[in-house]
Amino acid sequence: MSYHYDEKIDGALPSHDCAQILAELSALLPGCEILHEKEDLRPFECDGLSSYRATPMVVVLPETIEEVQALLAFASKRQVPIVARGAGTGLSGGALPLEKGILLVMARFKKIISIDAEACVARVQPGVRNLAISQAAAPFGLYYAPDPSSQIACSIGGNVAENSGGVHCLKYGLTVHNIQKLTIVTIDGELLTLGSDALDCPGFDLLALFTGSEGMLGVIVEVTVKLLTKPQSAKVLLASFDNVENAGRAVGEIIGAGIIPGGLEMMDNLAIRAAEDFIHAGYPVDAEAILLCELDGAEIDVLEDCERVEAILQAAGATDVRLSRDEEERQRFWAGRKNAFPAVGRISPDYYCMDGTIPRRELPRVLRSISELSAEYGLQVANVFHAGDGNMHPLILFDANTPGETERAEGIGARILELCVEVGGSITGEHGVGREKINQMCAQFNSDELSLFHAVKAAFDPAGLLNPGKNIPTLHRCAEFGSMHVHHGELTFPALERF
Amino acid sequence: MSYHYDEKIDGALPSHDCAQILAELSALLPGCEILHEKEDLRPFECDGLSSYRATPMVVVLPETIEEVQALLAFASKRQVPIVARGAGTGLSGGALPLEKGILLVMARFKKIISIDAEACVARVQPGVRNLAISQAAAPFGLYYAPDPSSQIACSIGGNVAENSGGVHCLKYGLTVHNIQKLTIVTIDGELLTLGSDALDCPGFDLLALFTGSEGMLGVIVEVTVKLLTKPQSAKVLLASFDNVENAGRAVGEIIGAGIIPGGLEMMDNLAIRAAEDFIHAGYPVDAEAILLCELDGAEIDVLEDCERVEAILQAAGATDVRLSRDEEERQRFWAGRKNAFPAVGRISPDYYCMDGTIPRRELPRVLRSISELSAEYGLQVANVFHAGDGNMHPLILFDANTPGETERAEGIGARILELCVEVGGSITGEHGVGREKINQMCAQFNSDELSLFHAVKAAFDPAGLLNPGKNIPTLHRCAEFGSMHVHHGELTFPALERF
Repeated sequence: MSYHYDEKIDGALPSHDCAQILAELSALLPGCEILHEKEDLRPFECDGLSSYRATPMVVVLPETIEEVQALLAFASKRQVPIVARGAGTGLSGGALPLEKGILLVMARFKKIISIDAEACVARVQPGVRNLAISQAAAPFGLYYAPDPSSQIACSIGGNVAENSGGVHCLKYGLTVHNIQKLTIVTIDGELLTLGSDALDCPGFDLLALFTGSEGMLGVIVEVTVKLLTKPQSAKVLLASFDNVENAGRAVGEIIGAGIIPGGLEMMDNLAIRAAEDFIHAGYPVDAEAILLCELDGAEIDVLEDCERVEAILQAAGATDVRLSRDEEERQRFWAGRKNAFPAVGRISPDYYCMDGTIPRRELPRVLRSISELSAEYGLQVANVFHAGDGNMHPLILFDANTPGETERAEGIGARILELCVEVGGSITGEHGVGREKINQMCAQFNSDELSLFHAVKAAFDPAGLLNPGKNIPTLHRCAEFGSMHVHHGELTFPALERF
Repeated sequence: MSYHYDEKIDGALPSHDCAQILAELSALLPGCEILHEKEDLRPFECDGLSSYRATPMVVVLPETIEEVQALLAFASKRQVPIVARGAGTGLSGGALPLEKGILLVMARFKKIISIDAEACVARVQPGVRNLAISQAAAPFGLYYAPDPSSQIACSIGGNVAENSGGVHCLKYGLTVHNIQKLTIVTIDGELLTLGSDALDCPGFDLLALFTGSEGMLGVIVEVTVKLLTKPQSAKVLLASFDNVENAGRAVGEIIGAGIIPGGLEMMDNLAIRAAEDFIHAGYPVDAEAILLCELDGAEIDVLEDCERVEAILQAAGATDVRLSRDEEERQRFWAGRKNAFPAVGRISPDYYCMDGTIPRRELPRVLRSISELSAEYGLQVANVFHAGDGNMHPLILFDANTPGETERAEGIGARILELCVEVGGSITGEHGVGREKINQMCAQFNSDELSLFHAVKAAFDPAGLLNPGKNIPTLHRCAEFGSMHVHHGELTFPALERF
């Protein structure tokens, strides 16, 4: 399978003498690791979206905020584009490097600076792993709520840059709702604080603006996250359905009853079987769909809610409902879900993970349409997703070595995203736009809206040096994409320009 | 008492021929009420901060989105500054008109467009009153959580513009956390959607940026708010203390125990007595401080939490703790708190309401300092506030007719804000910056941070026509303010430039 490289973006960037830049950087940052040999650069060629690759001109691994400031001021002065990278687990190519640019790797910023149990906050460096925060907070009875599937590996700086989600975001909010304060470095090397230690902060809400901005506005050098008290008790209900639509309907009915589960996830038969083969989570392999519904809070409350949810599930047509007997079984139920992506990777040579959101009410309709599209395109689609949030992750199974399958995968992916936008949803839920979905942004937003994004970008980075070619498409690109679109003769949203 | 009018702001604006503007507006908006007679303009001279007043050049009351678009496009074309106004209940002069500008009154946009009980959202026009949303949602068992004290009168558009808070924001978040989607009109008259019906939206988070932007970025013409399920049960604990600091400490201990009350409010003796005289809420008039702690949720949970909180209050030195016996008593306990400001207005010819936030842990220290300052300045200060949020509302009592008292009120107000910034807090919690605190923004932010605010403002409104002179000070103003500051010979934060 060949890798993507978009010459339209890199080609437009100014070229620099690599040896010259290297010499200047070495002089500027004597204490800092700087990589430039081909073999040293290889590990940084892609992030979690491994189908897109590029070799950066140079990789810099600073250890201090002052070094980050000096590096950005240098990039600004010399007009060299720069991409910041956390753990590189992102799924939309947000940390894809530029062949003519610097890759700023924040891996060395992995200190937990302080945990304030009274104020319920932790101050951490951006390279700290998501799970490490909860582990450090555990002795205080606290934890950090947003939990992307990659939480063992992903870093909090990357989580902020992508506004990452996870199973628990239904109840506890996205990353943006769990961040108190950021320290950032601007492209000019200035150190700024966004947010405050108090509840609210005057002026424009730059903290929220920065969260999810995909490295386009500045580089995060410190994060203060909010910590929550660990719920006294948590139980998971595992409900089986002989029909995907019923499962989708049950989701709306649980939320409609005023119950906000800690997590509410759905998997269809293909995903169930793949996960069960891999993890032995105890899933019913003959069910058409399962729902995993976690209820957390005070013990007595959890038991009461479990009864209410069980009744709703039964009424919605569940063929079987099981309550996790103990913590070990609860963890096992989740292990199947959290490993569903690699599990699907075991049953198909290639898979393409989509990430669209839809209003919850549309779940049954969209699931039905996906199943029809699967038949139409002759490709299997496994559904594993944050059902409570309406955040879908259809996994399109294909074999890139079979002629025509890649194009068919591309086609069905496009149709699924089109469907998401059609029913009032969006082209991405939690994985970000990055490089992968930059063309689809032209479908999601009109040119007035995109112009406003560009104006905001220019407020932070007028020369466009920070992560160019990601997140926000140029109007020119959209015009080209639009005409490509007309050329194909039908109103579609190609999932990938080339795959 | 004389009113404020800041010539420095209005003076710098271009002048227009009022009759000419009026003629053009009448031709442009034939179906629209346009006021220009002196007596018709008087009701619009100020908002809730009545010490600042100005007579607008012309007042326009549109009824349709198209009229708002036409009006803003006109303002842009003719370079006439424009201020949008909701219900006019704001406390920082955010809706203060300009003598050389148009006042756009959104009072006619008061339709509740739809309530979607399944998706838990309401689509409303910006002039709809905060409380009216909850009333309309009540038949579905839903409500809108943020509840400013002015919720009977204030409009949701103003709430979004100011990112309003309220008693329940501790548990349920600020306005920004309870908004799903906005439709706005830009200064060029373009209609844009920020946010989406799905959980998350790609691109920069302009929805959060817009919320709390105090009318500087555009005009809100439709709001989709999130609705929550009404808690099954709610109880209020009323705890008395013979010492303000103990009450402050109890606040930190409740939250530290992992309990997030629906509301956690504090009043000191002066406020208690004023409220009791006015409302007869049943408050203990000899207590030095009371805490009102509301616990809400499932009935069984509420009872358990009440027991835990009562134990914490007793251990923190409460001299008496009472649990609301029934809904009637719960409402009465809150009525005293919600009417505390007018109650204080009954015992003093004038009062000046401050609005600063501090990290919760600093409550005892800051309360002690306020009490020392009160003695030093010979002015009474009543404390009524959102203790759980660390959002303080010291009310400084004075008589503007007694020579020197206004200056003393100004002095102590400045010292209190200085204290808030000193301990890591901010100069405003929920009332906004508006015109009132524009100078204090120079103390809160450095020039790099202010420059970034200006750049963001310019991305939306390059000519600076939307609500000029509010929220974000010019660097020039800060330089002037800075030198005034040095001229007085000490590092203070004048609470008001002139009062």
